[in-house]
Amino acid sequence: METTRTELDAFGEAGLITRLTAPFQTQHPQTVQGVGDDAAVVAPDSEQTVLSTELFVEGVHFDLSFTPLRHLGYKLVVATVSDVLAMNALPRQLLVGFGVSNRFSVEALEELYAGIRTACRDCGLDLAGGDTTSSRSGLIVSMTATGAVAAAATTYRRGARPNDLICVSGDLGGAYLGLQLLEREKQVFLQHPDIQPVLSGHEYVLERQLRPTARLDVLHQLQELGIVPTAMTDLSDGLAAGLLHLSRASGVGVRVMEEQMPIHQRSYMAATELKINPMTAALNGGEDYELLFTVGQEHYQKLLDQTTDINFVGFITADPAEALFITKNNEAVPLTAPGL
Amino acid sequence: METTRTELDAFGEAGLITRLTAPFQTQHPQTVQGVGDDAAVVAPDSEQTVLSTELFVEGVHFDLSFTPLRHLGYKLVVATVSDVLAMNALPRQLLVGFGVSNRFSVEALEELYAGIRTACRDCGLDLAGGDTTSSRSGLIVSMTATGAVAAAATTYRRGARPNDLICVSGDLGGAYLGLQLLEREKQVFLQHPDIQPVLSGHEYVLERQLRPTARLDVLHQLQELGIVPTAMTDLSDGLAAGLLHLSRASGVGVRVMEEQMPIHQRSYMAATELKINPMTAALNGGEDYELLFTVGQEHYQKLLDQTTDINFVGFITADPAEALFITKNNEAVPLTAPGL
Repeated sequence: METTRTELDAFGEAGLITRLTAPFQTQHPQTVQGVGDDAAVVAPDSEQTVLSTELFVEGVHFDLSFTPLRHLGYKLVVATVSDVLAMNALPRQLLVGFGVSNRFSVEALEELYAGIRTACRDCGLDLAGGDTTSSRSGLIVSMTATGAVAAAATTYRRGARPNDLICVSGDLGGAYLGLQLLEREKQVFLQHPDIQPVLSGHEYVLERQLRPTARLDVLHQLQELGIVPTAMTDLSDGLAAGLLHLSRASGVGVRVMEEQMPIHQRSYMAATELKINPMTAALNGGEDYELLFTVGQEHYQKLLDQTTDINFVGFITADPAEALFITKNNEAVPLTAPGL
Repeated sequence: METTRTELDAFGEAGLITRLTAPFQTQHPQTVQGVGDDAAVVAPDSEQTVLSTELFVEGVHFDLSFTPLRHLGYKLVVATVSDVLAMNALPRQLLVGFGVSNRFSVEALEELYAGIRTACRDCGLDLAGGDTTSSRSGLIVSMTATGAVAAAATTYRRGARPNDLICVSGDLGGAYLGLQLLEREKQVFLQHPDIQPVLSGHEYVLERQLRPTARLDVLHQLQELGIVPTAMTDLSDGLAAGLLHLSRASGVGVRVMEEQMPIHQRSYMAATELKINPMTAALNGGEDYELLFTVGQEHYQKLLDQTTDINFVGFITADPAEALFITKNNEAVPLTAPGL
């Protein structure tokens, strides 16, 4: 297959930005000015604005040897939006900055932006600005997302109360296990370039790693039921880190149960093959981009009956020093996370 | 002098962020939630919100061999805010992401943040969030700033009309000449480490390069006179690039006069020593972070009498194909800028 390669300097910076951003359409009337002036302009709004920024560096956050650029663009938006959703806010505007070396072609950046565009559509984001620069060492991407939420519905990490139920959307550990599989096959390939990667049967965890989903549906479900979580955070760094954030910010304890851990059958299979404890993947793996939140017990039945893909994994306790994982044998293991 | 060096891994990421951000105080009641949750939260506002993002990469945007980290922190904020001011908006919130290798100590980052803090104070910005990551190749900084402006006062690049006056704040070319001096002395030092740099007498242009000013005062002056520019942009890439942006966005022509170029006496001196044409420095040097704007002729006398540091450099013409620099000999030279 012949592939066109257009060098980056074929356009000026302004021309490159126009080429990359022209296919985007705005969805919100609030986006008064998107790409194309010194800054984006957003109309006044009766809701609170949520702002989150992320910085992604090649070799640290992603490996282009097994990550297609289109998937990468999509995933970085999901990772950025995840923090907006964790405030109970719906995404509105996105700013994208990138630094590239001349290793990258215009077509490569178009692939990246195709993924960003699909994610913007799925997340309800308007691309509203950005910055372009050169880089001497691979790809750097910065993303800033805004969101909107009614003041009374804004959900912080600090509101969890004793006896609240701890809920998690989706299932955990899959993204980490997918990454381990990709890393393993990369090593095999580097040593024996003629051996084909053995990834079949693991589509689920690979999808969790390469194509995570932004859980807007969770916010919509909660809103329809009139439930505002008492506290919420996202699970970009694994369940243990999320629980420790909530616990510390709220001044409460947490207990989660091994038997209630939402781990997909396909994740168990991958974990077995990789000889990784699936609980470790769920607690410390990260990159699942699911939501962790707490609600009052009065909402239990309603959540159980009228939502999908929301799991109860434990409850809040009064003792701020307590952050425990309760095994199936009823042993209490302290939760830990690197850097916390 | 003994200098303390604390390795980055002495704290977790959360601890490092707390240490760097604790000295910041918020100034705006609109900043409901700053650093410390998944995202920043900003209260509803009757004004429009302006959003701008920048990505800065070591070796591309700055050279730490002659840029003190404290100055760098200050300058990057000014560079980011410059786009907000160019919309006629006053700065409100700042998000800072950075990537560092373990070449940097905690103390080095504290220097960077000390500069960011001073700039936040001078610009009226609340540090409201950020992201921290590792980098395999030096320092990367992403900054996103918000600003607020009444809808009727928002100033785009696209509003310039024939016969409008072209105005520039401050003076031009100094930052570029300062950079050339620093680069020259760096080369001398690399070849003869025992020779002291020869920079005395050039404090003005060095200050322009290392410690630029955010021109909030220009917005305040215009506001006091009740003048809304018809178009505005910032001068991060030099006057020629700014003029071409205004010209194209507005569908008009521009003419600027050599004899009206605001070039500081000290910049002429540095240009002579460096054998650089001071007009080239003003037109294409960049990094002056001054404001370029257009106003109706009816404002001429008021601006002349009642403002300081605002210069008239030319006027808008009806022909969109015309972008001219008129020399003292009355020759018309087309304006050009790389990438435009």
